[in-house]
Amino acid sequence: MDNSPVVTQVDTSLNYTQEDGLRLRSPVVFDSPKQNSMSSEADFDSRMMQRCLELARRALGRTSPNPLVGAVVVKDGEIVGEGFHPRAGEPHAEVFALRAAGDRAHGATVYVNLEPCNHYGRTPPCSEGLIKAGVAKVVVGMVDPNPLVAGGGIARLRAAGVEVLVGVETEACQQLNEAFVHRILHKKPFGILKYAMTLDGKIATTVGHSAWVTNQAARSEVHQLRAACDAIIVGGNTVRQDNPFLTSHQVEAHNPLRVVMSRQLNLPETARLWETQEAPTLVLTEVGANPDLQTILVKLGVEVVELPTLTPAQAMMHLYERGFCSVLWECGGNLAASAIAQGAVQKVMAFIAPKIIGGSHAPTPVGDLGFTNMTEALPLENVRWRVVGSDCLVEGYLPQ
Amino acid sequence: MDNSPVVTQVDTSLNYTQEDGLRLRSPVVFDSPKQNSMSSEADFDSRMMQRCLELARRALGRTSPNPLVGAVVVKDGEIVGEGFHPRAGEPHAEVFALRAAGDRAHGATVYVNLEPCNHYGRTPPCSEGLIKAGVAKVVVGMVDPNPLVAGGGIARLRAAGVEVLVGVETEACQQLNEAFVHRILHKKPFGILKYAMTLDGKIATTVGHSAWVTNQAARSEVHQLRAACDAIIVGGNTVRQDNPFLTSHQVEAHNPLRVVMSRQLNLPETARLWETQEAPTLVLTEVGANPDLQTILVKLGVEVVELPTLTPAQAMMHLYERGFCSVLWECGGNLAASAIAQGAVQKVMAFIAPKIIGGSHAPTPVGDLGFTNMTEALPLENVRWRVVGSDCLVEGYLPQ
Repeated sequence: MDNSPVVTQVDTSLNYTQEDGLRLRSPVVFDSPKQNSMSSEADFDSRMMQRCLELARRALGRTSPNPLVGAVVVKDGEIVGEGFHPRAGEPHAEVFALRAAGDRAHGATVYVNLEPCNHYGRTPPCSEGLIKAGVAKVVVGMVDPNPLVAGGGIARLRAAGVEVLVGVETEACQQLNEAFVHRILHKKPFGILKYAMTLDGKIATTVGHSAWVTNQAARSEVHQLRAACDAIIVGGNTVRQDNPFLTSHQVEAHNPLRVVMSRQLNLPETARLWETQEAPTLVLTEVGANPDLQTILVKLGVEVVELPTLTPAQAMMHLYERGFCSVLWECGGNLAASAIAQGAVQKVMAFIAPKIIGGSHAPTPVGDLGFTNMTEALPLENVRWRVVGSDCLVEGYLPQ
Repeated sequence: MDNSPVVTQVDTSLNYTQEDGLRLRSPVVFDSPKQNSMSSEADFDSRMMQRCLELARRALGRTSPNPLVGAVVVKDGEIVGEGFHPRAGEPHAEVFALRAAGDRAHGATVYVNLEPCNHYGRTPPCSEGLIKAGVAKVVVGMVDPNPLVAGGGIARLRAAGVEVLVGVETEACQQLNEAFVHRILHKKPFGILKYAMTLDGKIATTVGHSAWVTNQAARSEVHQLRAACDAIIVGGNTVRQDNPFLTSHQVEAHNPLRVVMSRQLNLPETARLWETQEAPTLVLTEVGANPDLQTILVKLGVEVVELPTLTPAQAMMHLYERGFCSVLWECGGNLAASAIAQGAVQKVMAFIAPKIIGGSHAPTPVGDLGFTNMTEALPLENVRWRVVGSDCLVEGYLPQ
């Protein structure tokens, strides 16, 4: 029997709050890789790339449509500059890191989790900045996911005589930017379906009560997940039944755009989601639905967008056009099933609480998908089972 | 956040087939505990007790109403005799182990996972046998669970000048005999509810198709579980819908009694469970139900028992009277809910397959328990999450 030890530590680095990447609080000296073997040089590269990812994560949820990028400048085994991309419109990670390093960037090695850009956008290309700073070597976690530009930044650096090493901690780099990569490749945001169910498969009792299925540790993990996403979607039922906040409940953490899908706009006039001082709310509906409620919502600061037809796919298209990378589906089973059927869900994150609630008609996480034979079930890929407090988090990807 | 690394290896020792415990195939010499520190003596004791459990497991599913017991005789750091209790009516483990040791038992240490008996039953008391053999020391995993006799065997040994150490690998000893202990303490068999569900909480599709939810590794684990139980219960729906075999599908492995609960006896005339040459089948029904089918079933070799009222609690009472320790509920959600409500389930073993089948009305593992608030859910205790192949097995105990 094959048994994989897959229960791992919770990645507490999700907890980072945003900071200025310009200044180092204390200089950190590592063993110089040059004095060691190839293997310890690889270890050093690996640690520096992990540091890039750590820096990149400080901007979780804030960079879309841009990726999460961190950069580290190393001279003689010492970090002399660090930076990360804080949000779209601001400089890239490499710019902050080079600025922090100053003259010490000359002859240094720069680590960056994503291939430096090679085009003039809102900022000049990072490849040029690195060349101008006179760096000797650039270590890249992963190449640009866009097949049209992939490798361009690396080629430019090499043409200028800079040594380039590609593919350090690639898997972790790809995972950090999986939503960005999906957006680039598929021209759609990356959809994550998150739910919490009991060990007997229910997301609520027969009368719809659901507070709470999971324990505090799992709920904290959900708050961190929200902080890392651009938007959260629920349906009208969730608003009427649970009246949720859908915020990240953390001081200084990013709050995603809270999105309600409601074709008929048969929503209550008061709801926690209409309190927009803490986080913004967008209501997606169909043209002409319930104009009176529309007026009320707009007065409360809720954005209302009418679409000709409202489906999960249309909602995702709208959020793509807003520049979003990651969208969290926190909806009930019926909307979840539509979202899956329309390809609006790429990843499933299921929290399972070891308790039994019972209920032949209690709601379950996913409604009708039209399958009658068990062999039609959608198998998740790259599945990870992880214990979170007293609950378990199962993560996996739907076949695309 | 608290994260416990609880994914463990599957205990392949469940795979043992029955063997004669009389003879050692090869003598095994261990470091003498006397030459080492206290800690290595404890390690040695621990290893010997694990060996007892290993031996005991060879009779899995065959000893009821007796416990699973293994014994090891050690002289000068060498195992000189081993044995286990093969089935009720046959000698106890200590008898086999002492026989195998012969004269070498004199001055030896005997390890046994359960306190030696001190009463005359179908066999003479093991305490007397140990004293007569002249053993110097007895190491006991756990005391007799019956509060009326607990400690009697130990006291008898000590009174005869035998050194007795109690409490080595106690937790493992208690777990191996948890069903026996429950039977003794509660005068009911130990009930295990086992089910397999998709990651969205379904045990079948909307039309009832369920082959297969889990993969081969999990199904093999279920077959081993069956081999370790005295009976498996299903309801009439499972017979009509799934037409299961409910055997352990292993050469030479024990097959539990297959039990069908059907009040109206509205069951098919042909079913795999009526093929009784491989494993016996018992149908529990109510007095006077469908006499024609009763005649057909009895002709096929199926045992039919009519009870005045048929409930999970009544079924368990009947199985208790037959001398059973462990009963596996492999039924659908409605019967599972009744069994839980009536205290006929002590342990839950839930296999979860990382796949999505969908279905608003697809069946789920546990039917109505009458709970309307999520806070009423029954929390499992001593929960263990274990990856089995590509699936996960969650084990836990219902509050009693």
